[in-house]
Amino acid sequence: MDLLTIRELFKNREEYLDKKVTVGGWIRSIRDSKTFGFIVVNDGSYFEPLQIVYHDKMENFDVISKQNVGAAIVVTGTLVATPQAKQPFEIQADEISVEGASAPDYPLQKKRHSFEYLRTISHLRPRTNTFQAVFRVRSLIAYAIHQFFQERGFVYVHTPLITGSDCEGAGEMFRVTTLDMENVPKNPDGTVDYSQDFFGKETSLTVSGQLNGETFAQAFRSIYTFGPTFRAENSNTTRHAAEFWMIEPEIAFADLDDNMDLAEAMLKYVISYVLENAPEEMNFFNSFVDKGLLGRLQNVVSSDFARVTYTEAVELLEKNNEKFEYKVHWGTDLQTEHERYLTEEVYKRPVFVTDYPKEIKAFYMKLNEDGKTVAAVDCLVPGIGEIIGGSQREDDYDKLTERMKEMNLNEEDYKFYLDLRKYGSTRHAGFGLGFERCVMYLTGMSNIRDVVPFPRTVNNCEL
Amino acid sequence: MDLLTIRELFKNREEYLDKKVTVGGWIRSIRDSKTFGFIVVNDGSYFEPLQIVYHDKMENFDVISKQNVGAAIVVTGTLVATPQAKQPFEIQADEISVEGASAPDYPLQKKRHSFEYLRTISHLRPRTNTFQAVFRVRSLIAYAIHQFFQERGFVYVHTPLITGSDCEGAGEMFRVTTLDMENVPKNPDGTVDYSQDFFGKETSLTVSGQLNGETFAQAFRSIYTFGPTFRAENSNTTRHAAEFWMIEPEIAFADLDDNMDLAEAMLKYVISYVLENAPEEMNFFNSFVDKGLLGRLQNVVSSDFARVTYTEAVELLEKNNEKFEYKVHWGTDLQTEHERYLTEEVYKRPVFVTDYPKEIKAFYMKLNEDGKTVAAVDCLVPGIGEIIGGSQREDDYDKLTERMKEMNLNEEDYKFYLDLRKYGSTRHAGFGLGFERCVMYLTGMSNIRDVVPFPRTVNNCEL
Repeated sequence: MDLLTIRELFKNREEYLDKKVTVGGWIRSIRDSKTFGFIVVNDGSYFEPLQIVYHDKMENFDVISKQNVGAAIVVTGTLVATPQAKQPFEIQADEISVEGASAPDYPLQKKRHSFEYLRTISHLRPRTNTFQAVFRVRSLIAYAIHQFFQERGFVYVHTPLITGSDCEGAGEMFRVTTLDMENVPKNPDGTVDYSQDFFGKETSLTVSGQLNGETFAQAFRSIYTFGPTFRAENSNTTRHAAEFWMIEPEIAFADLDDNMDLAEAMLKYVISYVLENAPEEMNFFNSFVDKGLLGRLQNVVSSDFARVTYTEAVELLEKNNEKFEYKVHWGTDLQTEHERYLTEEVYKRPVFVTDYPKEIKAFYMKLNEDGKTVAAVDCLVPGIGEIIGGSQREDDYDKLTERMKEMNLNEEDYKFYLDLRKYGSTRHAGFGLGFERCVMYLTGMSNIRDVVPFPRTVNNCEL
Repeated sequence: MDLLTIRELFKNREEYLDKKVTVGGWIRSIRDSKTFGFIVVNDGSYFEPLQIVYHDKMENFDVISKQNVGAAIVVTGTLVATPQAKQPFEIQADEISVEGASAPDYPLQKKRHSFEYLRTISHLRPRTNTFQAVFRVRSLIAYAIHQFFQERGFVYVHTPLITGSDCEGAGEMFRVTTLDMENVPKNPDGTVDYSQDFFGKETSLTVSGQLNGETFAQAFRSIYTFGPTFRAENSNTTRHAAEFWMIEPEIAFADLDDNMDLAEAMLKYVISYVLENAPEEMNFFNSFVDKGLLGRLQNVVSSDFARVTYTEAVELLEKNNEKFEYKVHWGTDLQTEHERYLTEEVYKRPVFVTDYPKEIKAFYMKLNEDGKTVAAVDCLVPGIGEIIGGSQREDDYDKLTERMKEMNLNEEDYKFYLDLRKYGSTRHAGFGLGFERCVMYLTGMSNIRDVVPFPRTVNNCEL
């Protein structure tokens, strides 16, 4: 079928004005009088809808007038400028055909529906303004991330989803199995006989691609992952999902400063890309979802991010401990309230906090010379708090194995990881960006369930 | 660290000739005489390695000369043209520092290793020429696919990995669970009590994002998915993996012809992109992996793909049944030998085969007017056979439910899918491209284990 998109009409209107055009789309609203009618139609290609005017000259005038919201139609007519109206043009229809009618019980009527209700119809909510905007922006952010890294020569690595290491330690994991759950095969001692499972061993869904990603950084120098990760955590919050996407770049011959430079450049790139490529959607969010959004994002793009050590940050926060529910002192992890105070009140721009106490960070982070802190970094942004977490990795074989002993990790499980320190180790660093958190940040949406097409959370796995 | 990449030196050499440069990389080979030595170094940014010349003027000459293959070094020196040599330039080193030594038992020595052996060290094999080429090309193909769809306004949709529908029917599925495998909770009748599982129901890993993708196509008109899918099939072949990535575009207001146009344009775009952006890697594959590769791919880019119905194809094949192990007659599914005969012998270019008997295709494919065939399409390419499978979808509510009854599918499980036919149904179509099969096709690699960073197959889930 040779249909123009509504986006094409809006973006190259001069080419089509006063010409015959054919578009297809879904009816957003329809009203008619005895001799003519108006249809507002959207085809999903563009945020702004298109108005169609039709007349009783059309032999199926009555059929069209009876269509419900949600019906799919194909319209041929002339694109006419409407300088007096809110919309820049409309189509004066010659022909309208019904591609697919919409039953009267169509759940999306013209009124505003609550996000809670729309979550119960995740197969239909992308037809609403808010979710058209959310999911187009989600798609653009994903592409901007690929573009950012590919333009810089990074290699995109698909790290595995199913993993045999139960030692990732970043959170509770989902088991993956083909064993018969009604009759789980057992060893003589009563434990599960995983040798009969599909992979011949116990397997789970990954919580991070980082360790695998490091192996590729030690071959390609600069790599990134962008794939799904999983947490089987029983936390029913607005910020946690059981299945979400992560971006994890890893750079060799690079230290913590390089890591921060990369994260800052990436965030600015992605925000700029979305502001440029989805102005209609971003204006919508700014007007109807989060009033300060555009100003906040523009401020991020034009600011140099602040950089402060954890130790300095704690000194700053301690002076304001009366403001916090959780009091801060050296050694505690920062809570969202502290993070937001730093970025919103103290620095009024994004801030990197570096060099955290080793006790509150992962085993693979590089030990600083003070012996107390590690070369970790969190990036805090106004309105949300932590959006990125990363570190320089421990590249010294002896220090890494020592740290693993302290944390009771089994060296045998990490043999491949230790090999990277044995054969041509390099200073290297990386970070993780939770993709959904990034989408929330750029759209102002406040519930992770509303930025994932089909969210998976505790007791919820619909469609 | 401010290091140039070797790619940058090769791509913009004029800028750096006779100037001081600093690079970091891993030693591929090293040899020295008493007063000077040569190091071949690769940093993963570029397929061709770089030669370093160093002299005993350097105070750490002996330390450098003792380094093993695999060691990481940082080199500062002058980039000098070498018009007599095979390589266009070399670095005359002033300083070399050892970033990380390589232990003498480094598994990748200069000799050629078998792919079988390299599969046992998947964390190190990306440091070899073949796997540098494979995984860079894999990354470029992924990006080309995103670029192709985004440039055409398609919305990228992350369809879910964990699914509650056990009715996808495309293959054996992995179960996802947090139940205690040693003490699986049971209902009074002895069945598993999945109400105690994480999602409160039975869940698995998806085999396709298509049905979810269709819901978004009915909102955005043109969408694509690009994510992992899973098959728990006990098939230990060179073409099957338990975890692999799929691309599934879905287009509304579109029929089977539109679908073929899209698939043809996509394949040509991706091949052209890789030929343009990885000429060194593609020449390597053509010389060392698959001699006819470049000619075959160039032929695909410059051919119009043939289009033939299944019925016509069977007539052609039946005349040559003596050549086939499996004899063809109307109603049988085509085997790889038949597919390759059609594309390699009959058409000598890619060919779309359409309109298969409904009995051998999925329930959601649109029934043709003959009542016997469905609007399915497979794309066959020389050297491999089927690379893409797709169809126009049944958009008629009654025909779809009738077909589901014939196949004993439970309507209740597909309520969301039927809603798409109830509220503004459109002609729509889509296809699936197995990403790994595409990488194999473009690189000439013949085992799927060698195009996946960390392959998952029966009894194999390492790293």
